[in-house]
Amino acid sequence: MSSNFSREFNFQAWSAERLAQVEQFLKHGIDAHSPASLGQAMRYAVLDGGKRLRPLLVMAAAEAVGVDLEAASVTDQPSSLAALRAACAVELIHAYSLVHDDMPCMDNDVLRRGKPTVHVQFGEAQALLAGDALQALAFEFLTPQDGSTEFSVQAAQVALLSRAAGYQGMAGGQAIDLASVGIPLSEIQLRQMHRLKTGALLLCSVQLGAVSAGKPNAQIFNGLSDFAQALGLAFQVVDDILDVTADSATLGKTAGKDAAADKPTYVSLLGLVKAQQLAEELYAESLRALEASGLHTAATEALGALAGQVVNRKN
Amino acid sequence: MSSNFSREFNFQAWSAERLAQVEQFLKHGIDAHSPASLGQAMRYAVLDGGKRLRPLLVMAAAEAVGVDLEAASVTDQPSSLAALRAACAVELIHAYSLVHDDMPCMDNDVLRRGKPTVHVQFGEAQALLAGDALQALAFEFLTPQDGSTEFSVQAAQVALLSRAAGYQGMAGGQAIDLASVGIPLSEIQLRQMHRLKTGALLLCSVQLGAVSAGKPNAQIFNGLSDFAQALGLAFQVVDDILDVTADSATLGKTAGKDAAADKPTYVSLLGLVKAQQLAEELYAESLRALEASGLHTAATEALGALAGQVVNRKN
Repeated sequence: MSSNFSREFNFQAWSAERLAQVEQFLKHGIDAHSPASLGQAMRYAVLDGGKRLRPLLVMAAAEAVGVDLEAASVTDQPSSLAALRAACAVELIHAYSLVHDDMPCMDNDVLRRGKPTVHVQFGEAQALLAGDALQALAFEFLTPQDGSTEFSVQAAQVALLSRAAGYQGMAGGQAIDLASVGIPLSEIQLRQMHRLKTGALLLCSVQLGAVSAGKPNAQIFNGLSDFAQALGLAFQVVDDILDVTADSATLGKTAGKDAAADKPTYVSLLGLVKAQQLAEELYAESLRALEASGLHTAATEALGALAGQVVNRKN
Repeated sequence: MSSNFSREFNFQAWSAERLAQVEQFLKHGIDAHSPASLGQAMRYAVLDGGKRLRPLLVMAAAEAVGVDLEAASVTDQPSSLAALRAACAVELIHAYSLVHDDMPCMDNDVLRRGKPTVHVQFGEAQALLAGDALQALAFEFLTPQDGSTEFSVQAAQVALLSRAAGYQGMAGGQAIDLASVGIPLSEIQLRQMHRLKTGALLLCSVQLGAVSAGKPNAQIFNGLSDFAQALGLAFQVVDDILDVTADSATLGKTAGKDAAADKPTYVSLLGLVKAQQLAEELYAESLRALEASGLHTAATEALGALAGQVVNRKN
């Protein structure tokens, strides 16, 4: 399926192709034979699991700005490879954050994606190291030294990802989350926490794709960024809804955990009905942002479909 | 004190100047007002402590290849700024590794640089996040988006640091270390562990400086790399010697810990006298590598002095 999607755009086929590309790259990109089983713990954390929302956002955004992600061409087009590498890099950051989040000193969770969490399977010390090494590997993925990707693209992508992952992004949001257990937050404070904790990496995903062929014009970059911010917030609202309405088997992780931990959520703040309305409004807002980007409607079909999937997901 | 040192090279004055530059950059580079005290935990982990060996190696290597690190010129010369940023970035990686290493699931240490460790002071969860965020910040430091550093230098430095920190570098060495407690290692196996655990980041420090004005010729790059590898190994041998011969107050951390944990060390393997001989031999080897680089003897004075300091240090 080529880029600049036509009216017959088939989301299922598109995502299946893209997911296969991501899985293949990740499998080859994490050496199982690394020292003292560390590579095995990293592969356990990353492979064969998760919705891969962030990689799909990277790739859909890249295709929206005209990068060709046809399977056959990925290896010989620099911008395609830059998008695929970034897709996998952001997934490594996401995976490391889950490994560390699940540890006893954080959420102390034993189940993730239907499997024992990394520290249950490999021990706490190995889980700590595997998370650390996954973060380093993300930046390794972004900086191939084989001439395949422009240095300006590499530098821009590292700049985006390091800021989104760090203390003024994801890690900062987690710190707010830690500090907020049992404390009543306003909707504005809750939004700020999620803007950092999950929103920063989702925004970064779209931006990583958008810059993979060089920085696009401001209208495109800002439109895609606005899209990602609405989607990021919708993602969290739906997460809070599912924590209440879904069971652990469907979620692949422990349901009802936020309520049990007395964590502030959109549902506890707004009630279930208004939280569902908010998710729908954010979905509509994300689609308006795509229009405002000035990109062809056809080119943004995958992004729009991903936003729909975020709002309508069951896990 | 200008670069391309003269015969009157004064190591004390040089290192005082360079350390002041590093401290200033780190203080300004880590925002204390970040979310939920995370920035404060990061500053606690990084500021006002440590020998700063890695930053000094970065800067000495940069000066060896002709980068001018005069205090007054750092802000307006791209290669100077690239060296200073890299010096601070590698220190952030080192600091994060200490924070995570000290945690209860790893070494469970309560004392570091004469102060309570980060998890003792801020709690385990915050220590985990602070370490994670310090790693991300290192890559942020390497990728300024203000046009001050060539993208090719940024990409090369990120490539070096991510590989040195990751599962085929420092994190991999830590995994071997974890797996080797109570297991008899040969000198070759011990060397391999340390080549990754501490050697990779020390080698990377010298290489980061060497590429801060663009990649130097192969003779220079290889000579400086050989220097760093000999120094890295010497560093570890001396560490093992000090673990036996120094007290906790001098070390600023718990002495005798490796022996108590039945960890393999150069002293347990070779005995104290032969370990001290090995350190001296490695020092001589590091100086020969500097000569083989083809750089002017004067230009490598700071590197040579740092190697001497590594071998003769008391803590």
